[in-house]
Amino acid sequence: MSRALTALVFALALAAPSAALTKKIPAAKVKAAAPSAPNPYFPPEPPPAPPQLHGIQYLYGSAEAAALTRQTWRILADFVDEQVASGTHRSVVLAPGSTLAEPHFTSCGDRPPAIVLDVDETSILNLGAEYDDLLANRRVFDEDAWNRWERDGALYVAPTPGAKEALDRLRDHGVTVIFNSNRAAVNAAGAEAALNAAGLGPARHGETLFLSGDDANGSMKDGRRQTIAAKYCVLAMAGDQLVDFSDLFKTEPNGIAARRATVAYSGIADLWGAGWFVMPNPVYGSGVQGGPDDIFPKDKQWRDPGPPQMPAPQTPTETQPKKAK
Amino acid sequence: MSRALTALVFALALAAPSAALTKKIPAAKVKAAAPSAPNPYFPPEPPPAPPQLHGIQYLYGSAEAAALTRQTWRILADFVDEQVASGTHRSVVLAPGSTLAEPHFTSCGDRPPAIVLDVDETSILNLGAEYDDLLANRRVFDEDAWNRWERDGALYVAPTPGAKEALDRLRDHGVTVIFNSNRAAVNAAGAEAALNAAGLGPARHGETLFLSGDDANGSMKDGRRQTIAAKYCVLAMAGDQLVDFSDLFKTEPNGIAARRATVAYSGIADLWGAGWFVMPNPVYGSGVQGGPDDIFPKDKQWRDPGPPQMPAPQTPTETQPKKAK
Repeated sequence: MSRALTALVFALALAAPSAALTKKIPAAKVKAAAPSAPNPYFPPEPPPAPPQLHGIQYLYGSAEAAALTRQTWRILADFVDEQVASGTHRSVVLAPGSTLAEPHFTSCGDRPPAIVLDVDETSILNLGAEYDDLLANRRVFDEDAWNRWERDGALYVAPTPGAKEALDRLRDHGVTVIFNSNRAAVNAAGAEAALNAAGLGPARHGETLFLSGDDANGSMKDGRRQTIAAKYCVLAMAGDQLVDFSDLFKTEPNGIAARRATVAYSGIADLWGAGWFVMPNPVYGSGVQGGPDDIFPKDKQWRDPGPPQMPAPQTPTETQPKKAK
Repeated sequence: MSRALTALVFALALAAPSAALTKKIPAAKVKAAAPSAPNPYFPPEPPPAPPQLHGIQYLYGSAEAAALTRQTWRILADFVDEQVASGTHRSVVLAPGSTLAEPHFTSCGDRPPAIVLDVDETSILNLGAEYDDLLANRRVFDEDAWNRWERDGALYVAPTPGAKEALDRLRDHGVTVIFNSNRAAVNAAGAEAALNAAGLGPARHGETLFLSGDDANGSMKDGRRQTIAAKYCVLAMAGDQLVDFSDLFKTEPNGIAARRATVAYSGIADLWGAGWFVMPNPVYGSGVQGGPDDIFPKDKQWRDPGPPQMPAPQTPTETQPKKAK
């Protein structure tokens, strides 16, 4: 689709009021509209907007997501600060042999305090890449385009709201900030540049930045977490995907309902907001999948019955001609 | 669209891998795919999925949103518990005459502690209504269908993850739980039933449940907040929309960038996660609006240049026939 056509599509999509925007119009206003005109006008259907549109609007454009993200950074920083101040150092990295139902944690010894953060949509917002995705109207992930983004996109990112304030505060208090990302190690210079451009550095590959390809485990992050935990006491982790906390989430049952139940396992339910901190991402990742029957439990599948039926018409008599369909 | 056709649309949408799901395929796997076959097969475009799909998948189906919501309830309960335990009662309801840049708060006196919660997509998930919306493939909000939902949907909702545990805990500690919703007062019985069915009650209209139509201010919630603050010391508020915290957000500049800047005003930036608690909602509301040029700042609008250009072909000589387009 050409840029001009894409622009037109979005202009039209915006011209039509979306269900989302008008959801809470006061009933009074709606009632004031022409009450059941005999020949209602049906405006032409607007062209389709992509399925990721509302997620993108929310994550990159909304004040609500900005406040939610700011809230998460603030509670992370408070949580870590309190432990640093009180000297209670407790690692939140799962030790080998853990399960999600019975987790146990690496020991801290006298290692210095650190936090471990995912990069994309946790520490930085990939504004440029998502703008490009939306305008290109991609339906399938383009590995090559993403690779060029990792290399060259540094100046087109922003910190997630509140990230810089939280990291500055924690560094001031002696906490080392370490990034653990699935960006490719061959593009390490781009990842460092993006974090530094967002004001979240220093990020140095192999020291405070760990990437996919650093070890033999590909995109699995547990090995890198163990490498970090061998040098630091990791007081908090943040991510937008469950695998930013443990690879065990990959080996649990992966159906929609099963994944959702996993996070409430008694062993880990209390970590959310107290060691493990989740950032919102309704745009991509494992959280964005499934159809209506996967997402909504059978016993919650309500259908609107519509307005009450008019009294049934009389049975037509022989003298009434049947209407052509 | 018929139910059968809708089901088909989603089945096809699922059959095609979405950009979201495949975003972080390890590079190695991608490389293993057939390297630039001479005659690539382009599968037919899947039919369009609705723009709210990814937001719905995330909010109602993802483990990530469940963890994020659980995290928010947990920090809200911890925050309130700490104030109750220490006797430091500080209201988070803006007093009349406040601005967002210079907020001040209602006084607590010796009023008993309470929290004030929005209902929809804060305390409960409207699973049935969103399932219906998705299957009906609505592009515009249907006020009548929503009205029927308010009246009859009680058994098709669920508490947001972690809500019940947090409210049970706070009630045990003497905190009154009050709901302030823009559901219609005429449907109060339905709102009470929904909250009770979700295990979040008791909710009694006029006592612990305030609705649109309770006063002369329609969907504006500040008046109801003042009514509540006259009887209680409100230690925390939770909502998925900025107006769940103050109507002042409506009178601030309402452009996308301006709204997003508002939440960082120095007077209120520190309330997020410490008195004001935001729940995720990428499905509807004021956060879900705008096109690419509204969402993405001009200086972050990256476009992928594509693969490096081949060396320019030689200027065609007269002997080379021109190709038909």
